[in-house]
Amino acid sequence: MSDKKNPKASPPPSPLIENRVREYVRSLEAYSVPQIPCAVRLDGNEAPLGLPGEVYERVAETLRGIPFNRYPDPEALALRKTVAALFGLEAGQIVVGNGSDELIAMLLITMGGGTGRVLYPVPTFSMYGITAKVLGLETVEAALDDAFDIDIESTLALIDSQDPDLIFLASPNNPTGNSFSEEKIKRIIEASSGIVVVDEAYCDFSGTTLLPLLVTAPNLVILRTLSKIGFAALRLGFLFAGEEIAAEVNKARLPYNINSLTQSFAELILRDPSFITERVRMVVKERERVFNALSYMEGIRVFPSDANFHLIRVQNAQWVFDELVKRDVLVRNLSSPGALRDCLRVTVGTPQENDAFLAALADIFPQK
Amino acid sequence: MSDKKNPKASPPPSPLIENRVREYVRSLEAYSVPQIPCAVRLDGNEAPLGLPGEVYERVAETLRGIPFNRYPDPEALALRKTVAALFGLEAGQIVVGNGSDELIAMLLITMGGGTGRVLYPVPTFSMYGITAKVLGLETVEAALDDAFDIDIESTLALIDSQDPDLIFLASPNNPTGNSFSEEKIKRIIEASSGIVVVDEAYCDFSGTTLLPLLVTAPNLVILRTLSKIGFAALRLGFLFAGEEIAAEVNKARLPYNINSLTQSFAELILRDPSFITERVRMVVKERERVFNALSYMEGIRVFPSDANFHLIRVQNAQWVFDELVKRDVLVRNLSSPGALRDCLRVTVGTPQENDAFLAALADIFPQK
Repeated sequence: MSDKKNPKASPPPSPLIENRVREYVRSLEAYSVPQIPCAVRLDGNEAPLGLPGEVYERVAETLRGIPFNRYPDPEALALRKTVAALFGLEAGQIVVGNGSDELIAMLLITMGGGTGRVLYPVPTFSMYGITAKVLGLETVEAALDDAFDIDIESTLALIDSQDPDLIFLASPNNPTGNSFSEEKIKRIIEASSGIVVVDEAYCDFSGTTLLPLLVTAPNLVILRTLSKIGFAALRLGFLFAGEEIAAEVNKARLPYNINSLTQSFAELILRDPSFITERVRMVVKERERVFNALSYMEGIRVFPSDANFHLIRVQNAQWVFDELVKRDVLVRNLSSPGALRDCLRVTVGTPQENDAFLAALADIFPQK
Repeated sequence: MSDKKNPKASPPPSPLIENRVREYVRSLEAYSVPQIPCAVRLDGNEAPLGLPGEVYERVAETLRGIPFNRYPDPEALALRKTVAALFGLEAGQIVVGNGSDELIAMLLITMGGGTGRVLYPVPTFSMYGITAKVLGLETVEAALDDAFDIDIESTLALIDSQDPDLIFLASPNNPTGNSFSEEKIKRIIEASSGIVVVDEAYCDFSGTTLLPLLVTAPNLVILRTLSKIGFAALRLGFLFAGEEIAAEVNKARLPYNINSLTQSFAELILRDPSFITERVRMVVKERERVFNALSYMEGIRVFPSDANFHLIRVQNAQWVFDELVKRDVLVRNLSSPGALRDCLRVTVGTPQENDAFLAALADIFPQK
């Protein structure tokens, strides 16, 4: 998700708020999602399908065995061992979080001990900057180039002058959809004496990963999530790193952060994830089909995507957004001055949902 | 839970760790629980019974309706409305967290904007101090008096000289078991220009609450949790405050922090919590019985308890702990120099579990 919270002026606060609440927190607007009921929901970068019936039966069976009165395993060891086996890692290289959001916060809390600076390219996932500022860290933004790839020379110059404790690189990037050049990411890892976090939330849809680099790059951290591949409801993210870094980040983890239900269900699902792979393949196939269709539409510019969504630019994003809602299709309006001017983000759904979206667009933009 | 993490010397870290990890985080030992398998587990202050069969059936039915591929409601509105109705509050006065732990962290992040100091009496729940230090805040400890109540004059003097942004008062207190004097808590609320957090994690077992004070004390925050009354597996805590404070703390909450399963199951359970009340009554009854039995045992000093556990002092806590484990009974060894010297904390279990504990003690300390 992008633009979760936007700093904005608030009404005058009471002296208690004025004197005690951190200034940046005070300036924030709480996150709120416009609840627009639409039959076709392509706004959240979620997977289009729920649990297969057969998997549901096994989840329900697992539920029966969970002692609700007992605390969860604070180490989530069974789950971490399952994930370790899946990715060829050691359990000691894995930290679990309530979605990537919590892992991002843990990284910022743990690693802000040097310069206290955090660098990321923009536009990107908004929680890097928001959480950094909430936690009192200084943010440094690097502009992406015209193809939404890393602008390597200016980024390296910023790393050199600002010496960030942490660099966040989402690849594939949200909301632009493209992967960053692997070569450029490697140059950043080499140039940085701090931690480089590669957020691979969408890598299942690109088919590429920097996971093998963990062996040789001690300052590399990789983030993964179950949210885009069918399990947003569970809120489960994984951090992969060398054991020394993982151990430090784990100290900032609240004990018992992952509840028993999430631990049990995720472990069950990841023990046999073949149905997930199958569904990811369907989304990728649909992505290509939607991309081709959008490419031929007048009034729409579609950017290449390695993720499970498309970024499109239109003449007037708010108008198109509203027209889509009238046709029961919900997308995300990201329009703001700059790189995302008049941009909408559209999740790839089921073939039927994608057809509904394309038909609505064709209706809004009658083709000659 | 007390003493979750203990600061301790680590082996020499790599330059990356040395230069980037915050100093206090580096000094921490990660939380680890000794996994001692015992038939009778009285170490975690959990409720002794799991889900009643009839409630389990309704939970399983609810599971069927949860769309695993969709993000949870970021506002947890249905749950917050149910809780609001239960406690006579507005939904806007309630913030939800993954256990009280996450709410404590949110409070520390939000409210550390004045002096950056946090005050709490000791001994108490260890996460106030640990999380404060992890987040870079300064901690101020006030000693309890000989009856483990607030030492009001020295505490007021500290509030006056240190002007803490936040004061944490756990009442009933963990691990001492007693409630603090309501009169003293009120004096602290009046004397403090910062926030006073009364952590009522164990108040179901004392039957008292400061909830009515929310109307008149704008700097009061109350914490509650489902962990002690049957749902530790869910990791769900509630913060109650005036709407203005709740709104500020809510800004530091990560969107989607509470997953869909916890939201749905907790809402279901809290819509008809009569079975919880029933079970709390059983625990209170058992607490009185165990207290009486312990009072007559030689070699044991038992402290009065308003919670679901007893603090006891013996001659040699480690020896008694080990002897209990040999008899298949697990308790918590809290012994450390000072107020908790040779102290054990023992959760109140089922009548059978309590009998097993008392029989084991009688075996260890043959009575004349």
